[in-house]
Amino acid sequence: MMRERKLVNRLATCFVAALAAVLLAGSARAEDGYNLWLRYVPLEGVQADAIRPFLGRGVQLLADRSPTIDAASSELGRAGTTMVGASDSPHPRLVLALADRLEAGGYPADNRLAGAPIGAFSIRRVRNGRIAIAANDDIGLLYGVFAFLRHVQANASLEGVEQFSAPAMPLRMLNHWDNPDGHVERGYAGRSIFDWWHLPEQLDPRMIDYARANASVGINGAVVNNVNARAFMLEPRYIAKLKRLADAWRPYGIRVYLSARFSAPRDVGGLATADPLDAAVRRWWKARADEIYTAIPDFGGFLVKADSEGQPGPQDYGRTHAEGANMLAEAVGPRGTIIWRAFVYSAVNSSDRAKQAYDEFMPLDGQFARNVIVQVKNGPIDFQPREPFHPLFGAMPKTKLMLEVQVTKEYLGFSSHLAFLGPMWAEVLRAATGRGATVAQVVAPAGMAGVANTGSNRNWTGSDFDQANWYAFGRLAWDPSLSSVAIAREWTSQTFTRAPEAVEPIVALMLASREAVVRYMTPLGLSHLMGTGHHYGPAPWVCDLPRPEWNPCYYHRADVDGIGFDRTATGSGALTQYAPPIAAKWSDLDTIDPNYLLWFHHVRWDHKLAGGRSLWERLIAEYDCGVAEADSFARTWSGLSRYIDSERYRAVAERLQIQHREARWWRDASVAYWQSLNGLPLPEGVEPPAESLEHYKSLTFPEAPGQ
Amino acid sequence: MMRERKLVNRLATCFVAALAAVLLAGSARAEDGYNLWLRYVPLEGVQADAIRPFLGRGVQLLADRSPTIDAASSELGRAGTTMVGASDSPHPRLVLALADRLEAGGYPADNRLAGAPIGAFSIRRVRNGRIAIAANDDIGLLYGVFAFLRHVQANASLEGVEQFSAPAMPLRMLNHWDNPDGHVERGYAGRSIFDWWHLPEQLDPRMIDYARANASVGINGAVVNNVNARAFMLEPRYIAKLKRLADAWRPYGIRVYLSARFSAPRDVGGLATADPLDAAVRRWWKARADEIYTAIPDFGGFLVKADSEGQPGPQDYGRTHAEGANMLAEAVGPRGTIIWRAFVYSAVNSSDRAKQAYDEFMPLDGQFARNVIVQVKNGPIDFQPREPFHPLFGAMPKTKLMLEVQVTKEYLGFSSHLAFLGPMWAEVLRAATGRGATVAQVVAPAGMAGVANTGSNRNWTGSDFDQANWYAFGRLAWDPSLSSVAIAREWTSQTFTRAPEAVEPIVALMLASREAVVRYMTPLGLSHLMGTGHHYGPAPWVCDLPRPEWNPCYYHRADVDGIGFDRTATGSGALTQYAPPIAAKWSDLDTIDPNYLLWFHHVRWDHKLAGGRSLWERLIAEYDCGVAEADSFARTWSGLSRYIDSERYRAVAERLQIQHREARWWRDASVAYWQSLNGLPLPEGVEPPAESLEHYKSLTFPEAPGQ
Repeated sequence: MMRERKLVNRLATCFVAALAAVLLAGSARAEDGYNLWLRYVPLEGVQADAIRPFLGRGVQLLADRSPTIDAASSELGRAGTTMVGASDSPHPRLVLALADRLEAGGYPADNRLAGAPIGAFSIRRVRNGRIAIAANDDIGLLYGVFAFLRHVQANASLEGVEQFSAPAMPLRMLNHWDNPDGHVERGYAGRSIFDWWHLPEQLDPRMIDYARANASVGINGAVVNNVNARAFMLEPRYIAKLKRLADAWRPYGIRVYLSARFSAPRDVGGLATADPLDAAVRRWWKARADEIYTAIPDFGGFLVKADSEGQPGPQDYGRTHAEGANMLAEAVGPRGTIIWRAFVYSAVNSSDRAKQAYDEFMPLDGQFARNVIVQVKNGPIDFQPREPFHPLFGAMPKTKLMLEVQVTKEYLGFSSHLAFLGPMWAEVLRAATGRGATVAQVVAPAGMAGVANTGSNRNWTGSDFDQANWYAFGRLAWDPSLSSVAIAREWTSQTFTRAPEAVEPIVALMLASREAVVRYMTPLGLSHLMGTGHHYGPAPWVCDLPRPEWNPCYYHRADVDGIGFDRTATGSGALTQYAPPIAAKWSDLDTIDPNYLLWFHHVRWDHKLAGGRSLWERLIAEYDCGVAEADSFARTWSGLSRYIDSERYRAVAERLQIQHREARWWRDASVAYWQSLNGLPLPEGVEPPAESLEHYKSLTFPEAPGQ
Repeated sequence: MMRERKLVNRLATCFVAALAAVLLAGSARAEDGYNLWLRYVPLEGVQADAIRPFLGRGVQLLADRSPTIDAASSELGRAGTTMVGASDSPHPRLVLALADRLEAGGYPADNRLAGAPIGAFSIRRVRNGRIAIAANDDIGLLYGVFAFLRHVQANASLEGVEQFSAPAMPLRMLNHWDNPDGHVERGYAGRSIFDWWHLPEQLDPRMIDYARANASVGINGAVVNNVNARAFMLEPRYIAKLKRLADAWRPYGIRVYLSARFSAPRDVGGLATADPLDAAVRRWWKARADEIYTAIPDFGGFLVKADSEGQPGPQDYGRTHAEGANMLAEAVGPRGTIIWRAFVYSAVNSSDRAKQAYDEFMPLDGQFARNVIVQVKNGPIDFQPREPFHPLFGAMPKTKLMLEVQVTKEYLGFSSHLAFLGPMWAEVLRAATGRGATVAQVVAPAGMAGVANTGSNRNWTGSDFDQANWYAFGRLAWDPSLSSVAIAREWTSQTFTRAPEAVEPIVALMLASREAVVRYMTPLGLSHLMGTGHHYGPAPWVCDLPRPEWNPCYYHRADVDGIGFDRTATGSGALTQYAPPIAAKWSDLDTIDPNYLLWFHHVRWDHKLAGGRSLWERLIAEYDCGVAEADSFARTWSGLSRYIDSERYRAVAERLQIQHREARWWRDASVAYWQSLNGLPLPEGVEPPAESLEHYKSLTFPEAPGQ
């Protein structure tokens, strides 16, 4: 009996140990990523004490109550409760003040706010150790509160919180390619976050958290449906749904926009035509716009994809893009904006798909109505891992142009691969057009749109790191001069940990990530080598699809002698669409940025590049470098487990394993295919592909998401 | 200046009040429903003190460590930490013991466990104030722990925790109609919870919480893909993914099953035929099964939908269902089970769709291999709000039959309407087949399958109350004798609140809910009047689709004289498929249960029912009663706001508004249509339909989910 008791006790002891381990795991599970960068992790000790007076209950308000002010106070309350514990402060030391009430409140005016754009704010230390957030408008106060909380979260300190900040462009928008049935085109994070089926009666609490997240980075508009639009979303049933969203988002400064199907007058309006010059068509759109504005006085307007990829448009009636856009602009009038996409991809084959938008739109410069914006993708093809900037930027001085980037990673490994896109967007924003302005300056009067990466997944974006792209989009649209390092650092500090020994390696990993994807997928200016349709995985060999530009071989043009698309004046001529200084620099194999080499040139495999290596050797080196970088991401992350909660640590680690494997797959399949064309041996010491080319060709992915 | 200060102070005060309100709302947001009925809400005071010794750290373990025991300890740790605060107890008072170790541990044996089925457990008070959970196997201990926690959560007390419990049937399974691309057929809770795209590298933490939820109610199997299956899921790429799930679920006693496409040998096997008597076909399936069992030794087996709704099957080769099923049974051998669905719905029109399964399967009784189970839906048509039990139950004594019910509410208003299905399933389980056994007794040797209602929504099931159907399915499969009241009460206490003044009205609402749906959608035995395709909303007028049984008019057969489907011996004869005593009782208009009246009879509008009212009057009364009940649900709920966290309170309230509106829509559209046929006036005092019949006919729902 005694012996048995001992056995029992031993087992019980062992059991207690197991339990303790399990409890730790259990407590970490709470981090499901839902709170994004608005986690408000508790502060402790002196850090908490220093910040409590500014985040306790109470604040001095020099503004009237409004839904936006309530949203700001709600956010302060939420942050205060969680970060420092709610406490009543008899002498609140945080001041929220409209600029024109500062002096009445006994604080100095802030001249920087005079004439500043909507949403601008300042954060200053004022008398008695107080901090004043000031703005010309309520939304500026909300943005200021979010900036204040961002600083506190990222630094656990008020040091350096003082700032003046104003948005660089008026429209900072997400475009959702979400269908009303819940499918998200190019969505890799589950179903749509918009529950049209239960609207207007039911408003998912996610819709408030979505608005909070957007407002926290300055995003102020959302196109809620796919540019491949369904016409029935213009009907009264949907206007009621849209109104519920608009009402919920208004306090956060988010305006609702709708993608409109150009043929709606025929599809749902009972008309025989959608000709933009037809009087009945114009009346129909005017009536629709009036219905919408009656329900939603601050409705943003329509986004239109016309005459592209099978979508209807004015060209169906022999009219121009300008005639189509202006008809809609007249319908909404000064109440809203028509955003007209320049991404045209017609069913008629042109010599070079990259030239089409410029050819169609540049001649229309000056013909668009005042409230029309032409929305131009960052590059002339379609959201590739790297593209040169779009030649339309700078080429339409009499037209408002808006920059469209893709936050969802259609061509960069979906949500499965880690790729921080801040550096990619900074690259295009800072590109000099050669016509006297950077792209950021060109789009400053209009704005920037990002194709959203949100979905029904608990963490919103499918992978934890893809949250950073949503974040970076908003931050760059607000301030294109922000460095990717700064954005990555503040995001990481808020999202994962403030420990510098973890923040710095994570930031380094993020900054290297997009370049790594370029290297293992499409180095040296290659593009569009992904499997046609789903755009996942390598398929450079595909060359048998009916339309030339559906085939990866159309883009790489590789043969026994060389590789690349000759877009010089003697080739497709696409390079001539750029400003002369740019065109001249990029025409020359010796002066072109190697990142764009094969985008603009067909280059012999044995061509010697700067540094002495042949193109073939350099290409292989790029692939190997990309693979090595992907490997290093997994290694870096594996050293960080003690800084990250177990659930997100494991989720990231597992996705990095996928990236590790698939980077090699991209490299091996590509190398095997190029070798099948050029018959060249691999440079000394280079590992041959793991499998045969036939193996890579045999892989199929009928269940690939987002199609 | 003084005046201004006062103004400022007044504003500040007002602001503090607003903040406080906001903080309350903020704290309640945490209840997003993700934790289901495993919330482990903190106990306080004497309640916590009484339970702490049983839930503190430490437990006396009379079993060896195993993944299942670790899962049990993990659950105890999670519950203990949250409910009573973790504490070290020098004298743990909870004992987990395998039955054959009880006496060695100094506790009395429990004779009830001798010979009990796998998973049985007992909870007893033993010496020194201890409570012992005992079982013959580890999974029984896990089930016992969940039963213990259920009791503690529901009662905040250990009083009455003593129990002996054994599962009534060996297989308690969920069938997921989830496609590998993430779409869920008849899914109303978002995308699939299975992330095939990232498996096997990435295991979503949801997969563990899914297993916990299932194990907590005794569910022990999951068919992870749609019965309309894709053949590629039998390939090695998918076996690796399946293995990761099986490994994750094994500790929780969940076995993995796969829906198999019968034509797979042709689709992906490169064979010219899928004839089950072909030797190459048989070898192919054997090889697939061997591959799977090498990776997953406890793989459950295959579920097959054959020769139904366009799916391939043995009849394509002139073979019987038994020949098809037995071929697969041979391939898996004693390692697993073939579950063959009796839901056959062939493209060849029969006189009465309700007769088809019986006609095809009854003659095959005795021809199925030992490891084949025939899975029969609860009723002869297709998951209607009410159906009589399926005539196959009791009619195939030499065949194992399994009951299939639908947890997802394809025909009961999706996740938008509240309908607690416990009473519906109890109705079929307890139905006397007239052949010496209830349905529950017929299926006891096999099991029960529920078509899952899970999805990517944060709360798993789209609406909070639909969690109750997942819960009730598991509880009833474990013990079909459980009352719906008891299930509703324990679910509510765990999920919402233990306050009796809230629990009792919620339980009353739940118990009335399914009958309300029957009344406002398909009263008195009507069926299948939903819009064809999406199955949402009333469309009794649809009568022009190419196949007769695609049309609601096929099912109601209403005309100027009467309504209902004559399935008596002089009609379609479907009633003659039932045992003679049942058939006799239901043949007679005076003795038939009015719930099945129009299912089996075509009845004149002016036919006088018991009580003296005409059928027409009674029908109207049923509709009005259903609408009134739906209204009362919304009223009941509106009185409960102080008991429920704000997020879930509002979500339920908003869905009840939808149900309120749509109950009226169902009633009005149906009444308007019947009136258009029979020309009868409405009884005195009855409200006419709100809109014209044409209005109801004009409604379309192109975005309806789940198709």
